[in-house]
Amino acid sequence: QPDSTDHQPDRHRSTTLTDAEVEDLERWWRAANYLSVGQIYLRDNPLLREPLAPEHVKARLLGHWGTTPGLNFVYAHLNRAIVERDQAMLFVTGPGHGGPANVANAYLEGTYSEVYTRFGDNEDSLRRLFRQFSYPGGVPSHAAPETPGSISEGGELGYSLAHAFGAAFDNPDVVVACVVGDGEAETGPLAASWQSTAFLDPVHDGAVLPILHLNGYKIANPTVLARRPESQLRAYFEGMGWAPRFVAADDGEDHAAAHRAFASALAECLDAIRGIQDRARSGEGRGPGDSAEPWPLIVLRSPKGWTGPPEVDGVPVEGTWRAHQVPLSGIHEEPGHLAQLEAWLRSYRPEELFAHDGGRSPELVRLAPRGDLRMSASPHANGGRLLRDLTLPDARAHLQAVEAPGVVRAGAMGVLGEWLREVVRANPETFRLFGPDETASNRLQAVYAATDKVWQERIEGVDEHLARAGRVMEVLSEHLCQGWLEGYLLSGRHGVLNSYEAFVHIVDSMFNQHAKWLKVHRELPWRLPVASLTYLLSSHVWQQDHNGFSHQDPGFIDHVVNKKAEVVRVYLPVDANTLVCTMDHCLRSRDYVNVVVAGKAPALQWLGPQEAREHCARGIGVWDFAGSEVAGEEPDVVLGCAGDVPTGEAVAAAQLLRRDLPGLRVRVVNAVDLMRLQDPREHPHGLPDAEFDALFTVDRPIVFAYHGYPWLIHRLTYRRTNHGNLHVRGYIEEGTTTTPFDMCLRNRIDRYHLAMDVIDRVPGLGPRHASLRQRYADAAFRARDYTRRHGEDPAEVSGWTLGD
Amino acid sequence: QPDSTDHQPDRHRSTTLTDAEVEDLERWWRAANYLSVGQIYLRDNPLLREPLAPEHVKARLLGHWGTTPGLNFVYAHLNRAIVERDQAMLFVTGPGHGGPANVANAYLEGTYSEVYTRFGDNEDSLRRLFRQFSYPGGVPSHAAPETPGSISEGGELGYSLAHAFGAAFDNPDVVVACVVGDGEAETGPLAASWQSTAFLDPVHDGAVLPILHLNGYKIANPTVLARRPESQLRAYFEGMGWAPRFVAADDGEDHAAAHRAFASALAECLDAIRGIQDRARSGEGRGPGDSAEPWPLIVLRSPKGWTGPPEVDGVPVEGTWRAHQVPLSGIHEEPGHLAQLEAWLRSYRPEELFAHDGGRSPELVRLAPRGDLRMSASPHANGGRLLRDLTLPDARAHLQAVEAPGVVRAGAMGVLGEWLREVVRANPETFRLFGPDETASNRLQAVYAATDKVWQERIEGVDEHLARAGRVMEVLSEHLCQGWLEGYLLSGRHGVLNSYEAFVHIVDSMFNQHAKWLKVHRELPWRLPVASLTYLLSSHVWQQDHNGFSHQDPGFIDHVVNKKAEVVRVYLPVDANTLVCTMDHCLRSRDYVNVVVAGKAPALQWLGPQEAREHCARGIGVWDFAGSEVAGEEPDVVLGCAGDVPTGEAVAAAQLLRRDLPGLRVRVVNAVDLMRLQDPREHPHGLPDAEFDALFTVDRPIVFAYHGYPWLIHRLTYRRTNHGNLHVRGYIEEGTTTTPFDMCLRNRIDRYHLAMDVIDRVPGLGPRHASLRQRYADAAFRARDYTRRHGEDPAEVSGWTLGD
Ligand SMILES: Cc1ncc(C[n+]2csc(CCOP(=O)(O)OP(=O)(O)O)c2C)c(N)n1
Ligand SMILES: Cc1ncc(C[n+]2csc(CCOP(=O)(O)OP(=O)(O)O)c2C)c(N)n1
Ligand SMILES: [Mg+2]
Ligand SMILES: [Mg+2]
Repeated sequence: QPDSTDHQPDRHRSTTLTDAEVEDLERWWRAANYLSVGQIYLRDNPLLREPLAPEHVKARLLGHWGTTPGLNFVYAHLNRAIVERDQAMLFVTGPGHGGPANVANAYLEGTYSEVYTRFGDNEDSLRRLFRQFSYPGGVPSHAAPETPGSISEGGELGYSLAHAFGAAFDNPDVVVACVVGDGEAETGPLAASWQSTAFLDPVHDGAVLPILHLNGYKIANPTVLARRPESQLRAYFEGMGWAPRFVAADDGEDHAAAHRAFASALAECLDAIRGIQDRARSGEGRGPGDSAEPWPLIVLRSPKGWTGPPEVDGVPVEGTWRAHQVPLSGIHEEPGHLAQLEAWLRSYRPEELFAHDGGRSPELVRLAPRGDLRMSASPHANGGRLLRDLTLPDARAHLQAVEAPGVVRAGAMGVLGEWLREVVRANPETFRLFGPDETASNRLQAVYAATDKVWQERIEGVDEHLARAGRVMEVLSEHLCQGWLEGYLLSGRHGVLNSYEAFVHIVDSMFNQHAKWLKVHRELPWRLPVASLTYLLSSHVWQQDHNGFSHQDPGFIDHVVNKKAEVVRVYLPVDANTLVCTMDHCLRSRDYVNVVVAGKAPALQWLGPQEAREHCARGIGVWDFAGSEVAGEEPDVVLGCAGDVPTGEAVAAAQLLRRDLPGLRVRVVNAVDLMRLQDPREHPHGLPDAEFDALFTVDRPIVFAYHGYPWLIHRLTYRRTNHGNLHVRGYIEEGTTTTPFDMCLRNRIDRYHLAMDVIDRVPGLGPRHASLRQRYADAAFRARDYTRRHGEDPAEVSGWTLGD
Repeated sequence: QPDSTDHQPDRHRSTTLTDAEVEDLERWWRAANYLSVGQIYLRDNPLLREPLAPEHVKARLLGHWGTTPGLNFVYAHLNRAIVERDQAMLFVTGPGHGGPANVANAYLEGTYSEVYTRFGDNEDSLRRLFRQFSYPGGVPSHAAPETPGSISEGGELGYSLAHAFGAAFDNPDVVVACVVGDGEAETGPLAASWQSTAFLDPVHDGAVLPILHLNGYKIANPTVLARRPESQLRAYFEGMGWAPRFVAADDGEDHAAAHRAFASALAECLDAIRGIQDRARSGEGRGPGDSAEPWPLIVLRSPKGWTGPPEVDGVPVEGTWRAHQVPLSGIHEEPGHLAQLEAWLRSYRPEELFAHDGGRSPELVRLAPRGDLRMSASPHANGGRLLRDLTLPDARAHLQAVEAPGVVRAGAMGVLGEWLREVVRANPETFRLFGPDETASNRLQAVYAATDKVWQERIEGVDEHLARAGRVMEVLSEHLCQGWLEGYLLSGRHGVLNSYEAFVHIVDSMFNQHAKWLKVHRELPWRLPVASLTYLLSSHVWQQDHNGFSHQDPGFIDHVVNKKAEVVRVYLPVDANTLVCTMDHCLRSRDYVNVVVAGKAPALQWLGPQEAREHCARGIGVWDFAGSEVAGEEPDVVLGCAGDVPTGEAVAAAQLLRRDLPGLRVRVVNAVDLMRLQDPREHPHGLPDAEFDALFTVDRPIVFAYHGYPWLIHRLTYRRTNHGNLHVRGYIEEGTTTTPFDMCLRNRIDRYHLAMDVIDRVPGLGPRHASLRQRYADAAFRARDYTRRHGEDPAEVSGWTLGD
């Protein structure tokens, strides 16, 4: 239960600022703007001690000015509120291309020099701060991992608000301020994110305060929201559970009025948040039929490129889309532009802001919050600082006895659900399960014995497992699930995203951005390790019942393995026990993206508890029980497999061959950890060549049955000695609504085709066993035919066990 | 100008239905529901001539009942309106898992038997219609390409409304009715789609009538919108430019009241649409400062699984999430369930709906619209029927003279923009350019000399190229761009999507679904070819100025090539002329997805007009001007390249080697058509082995500089004879905001590393040329160092030409 005793609900703040308060806000804003323009333009003369000369200006002028002054304006006000209220806040910037703002504020707060100790508080540091921005070997232009206080890069627009909510969950004392670009607001993920209010619990969660940055433009166009009348905007937000407050600063000139309007809106919002939380936390709670209270939100209408050059070469710039990037260019060519740049920089009066040595003036320093309350120093933005290990239930207690391999059926996801239920029980505040309305469909419903699905809207009698608080987050938006989870992880907690395998492609680009974030994060010593993002993908390509071709796509793995090898891990458990062991491993890991693909339908169980743990520890291994090797001799053929359904087919094929070609020595190799296949120079999990060659031989044919697109196995193994003999079966994009075995047949990954592949590839077998091959072909035909006549798979397949 | 003379604006329809009219609607609805339940359950006894027995019921019960009766209800009403008004309509179903509804209605309209002539209008046809649904060898469960009248599969939820808008653009006489699931409405793409009103021109475009299907639930949860008070819903939609009308049919019992309420809402909406169009088309037009009129929208509140079993085994089903899939299962085990199923089926009174031979009763047939007005037969849903070739300007008039290769610089996208401007001019009603606010950023701004960007919100003096009508669609949502374009193409028009290369991953999953659609569409003779979907990707991985790591991702190509080879094409033009030739080819193609990646920055031009046309026709070829071969002899090494920046580096490397190792015979091979590299058994564009071996030799080292992730080249070529000697350089996920050449250096694809690779790989060179190798290493170091000191690339690189 969050502690709600130590705040003063009726502590009241003046909403009309004194002139001195306005002056303070203006001072911070001027300083941050000055440092931002300096980053974009200057390579020298950082304090304008000399008249600005062309050689002080960078050769390549890069960066996005347009959004930056607005971010700085908001930051100044948030700082004031933090100091006044001792309120822990986090700053998420949708238009992360305003990176100079984040750096400027971190520098002004002193955090920058604490994190990057090569910087101090002096002129030389300013010079280097300016120079490094968007500079080779320097820092990127966005609110990147390198930026203290950031958990959202904001390069690919649309995710800020979801990240903000993720950070707010289970953080009852934090207010996450989230600046949303008005262009960003046109994106799908952002448009969906407004509905997150339906999932934020005012008792146990913190709050999100969105600030819609209505600067009117995106890159080259006005924005939809900026051109709609205020009444329409109000309606839109009220419709999504928000109570908007409008701050009109669009004339741009009257800074004092703008400060006063924003400060009072902010104070009202923070009071309103506190009010909602107080009422919710007072213990009465809302009845199931009650609607949620609307959360406050600020719409800040201000000119794009505020305080920048109003006109350049006779055309308006400030307040137009032309302010988006570098509003004044050609500085080295146009003396007029140089003069205009100098005037612009001097308009912030740097001489008042920085002392003689270039250090921040005491009047500035005084304005910053202290210690961890500085948003650039918030531990919530460097989640590793707060991360605690999960308390994990002993996986062994959940592993199933397996008397003999391939005899008993169980649903792997169902068994995992029971283990996850215990994970939830043991970690009631630091673990959540996210999914797009598929948690039960993916057979994880056992978790509902321990927790509920979070829901702040009306709850009706017919509903099950819905509650105001809980560990399961279900919304029909893969984008929201992913964005929330990223925010939750980066602020130091743990979670899993479960999804249909095919539709996880919806978040391909979000995965990209997160993997890129992790890659850089890992290179930064001050960013401490965070929990891995684990995808648990089920309802996979081989296991559709009600759905067809659109639901059949195993390509997420291909997408994932293009990212930095240190960051990505891919697992294909074959049964319940290997799934539980795999997930146990994933939930202990840090700074990775784990992809786990697992079946939900009842399927044959292969490995007992001990075997499963050993197999998962190895990641790959020979399955003696399935093969027909002679100890100490090389096999005639290797049947490789990865993925639950292909593995079953491979084992069944080996059984056919054992029966029909008793002299043939077949080795069955299963890979649970897909990256074991890759060259160790490419992936840390890659098997050394000697080991790979031992498993797969250097010259025998390999027939490999793979869960996904077959080419991936070639891409992973092309450097291996025996690659020339590798023949891969996989999903070749032949699907529809049909039976499970018909799916195998269509893609030629079924036992009969695998057995035929062996006959075709083992030297000498083909000519001698033409009639056996024909029997397999006929068996495949008969099975297909049976599905056409009966609408289900023949019992010899659907009921097949290794005991047969 | 659309013709607006032949309608009667004041023709008035009674909004209160007579009992006979209610009876007609109810009849159609009963029939469609009966056929839907039949598809889900029955394998025999299709007209219930006998008591229902277990053997009449399918073995596997598949499908989604929950959404289906609502779809049928809406369909019945739309049909009535079509007949009454002679209004061309299209039917798009967001919850495409209600596929049985689409099939049922197409059958009732007679379209099904026209398209699939193995079906007639009799009992046996009904039996086969039922049996084939979700059955091996039958039809899929969704509103798939196989479904007459569909342009949206609706498997992956979220795209219906964008598809509907795409179909409405430039279709002034059509109303696209779009059923949006209340669960679907939670997705990002759908949430963003509401703002499409800001881009629909009432003069030249048709209308979209969304019907929010508020059946309360998704798979296992209530929906956010269904649990919010009506006032909030109203506000939400008004905020997005819509005028919602609410139809409450949630008690479910009083069908007549539901029909009356829906019919009058529909009539009001269609009248309102006509009113908006009339006012807009009357010639006065709106002033730039005027807001757009809100468009009508229906919110239909009805029970999920309406008319299905109210309770099963004592728990409520109708009106709850339990109705989502198959509400009654275990028919073969539970006699009570069998009886319940029979009662449910009989509740539709099939004996009144079908004649003795099983044919549709005359009372049903009478209700269907005629000919192409049947939504299942609409030519707009089989766009190939309407497709006209584009009038393409002669590409040759736009190709640039190139005196010598690699001497002149030009921006490829800028030159293409001029050709696209002429495409726009020549095709003012059938071609559109879609992009997420990046058309000018991607340097295509020349098109604005011929057209404008569509914008229905306020237009201000400062705006440029915004107008109520135009050919360019810009919205900050890749999802909307893609969805609109898909709808536009599938309804028989042409278009191009331009995007930053990295962010096109946002629509990975939408691409998947479109590629799957095309794969199946191509197998259906009655679906006529449609224009290809062409992606024009720029601001690519090697060409970032203002942005960094988040904007560097060439993996879309990898994603695309997993789809069926017949459907996908990938082009990497090297300069302006090859880009224009490639796009000219793409805009003539049908039924493909084309991916074209091209640079926007000024870059060296390699091929003159004739050479470019020949090179593009071949797709791959030797660049004699770049290599140092001796005619008639084998080269010592092949430098392969694909992509503009890697090609420049490869040519520069060849030049270094020519200078420093005059005896070395280097062949330079460039691939513009990436799929030429693949095995011809895998891709129709694949080079025959003999040709590949001739180009790349069978035994010489190949150093390949590739635009994207290097592994893709291995995946494409692993079967080639000389694959063992292939060494690929590409993007290895090392990026940040930096100079162009520093990007090459970081990923070791620069000229110096390529030259070192050659020394390392040509047998014998390494030991003899250790000091030359060292000179290259030092040159790379110096170049890197220069960027650190000057913030830009050294002139010897940035200003390098082949003439040097
Ligand atoms: C998903 C995505 N699509 C396109 C872009 C390219 N882009 C960069 S900035 C920008 C405009 C952003 O406008 P807005 O959100 O209003 O930010 P601001 O005006 O504050 O700069 C666009 C379209 C992007 N970064 N992300
Ligand atoms: C993007 C996506 N995520 C998840 C699913 C899985 N899914 C299938 S149906 C469904 C619920 C749909 O609810 P709704 O849109 O309300 O349709 P209806 O209630 O009419 O069936 C879900 C989540 C999906 N099809 N697409
Ligand atoms: Mg903006
Ligand atoms: Mg629904």
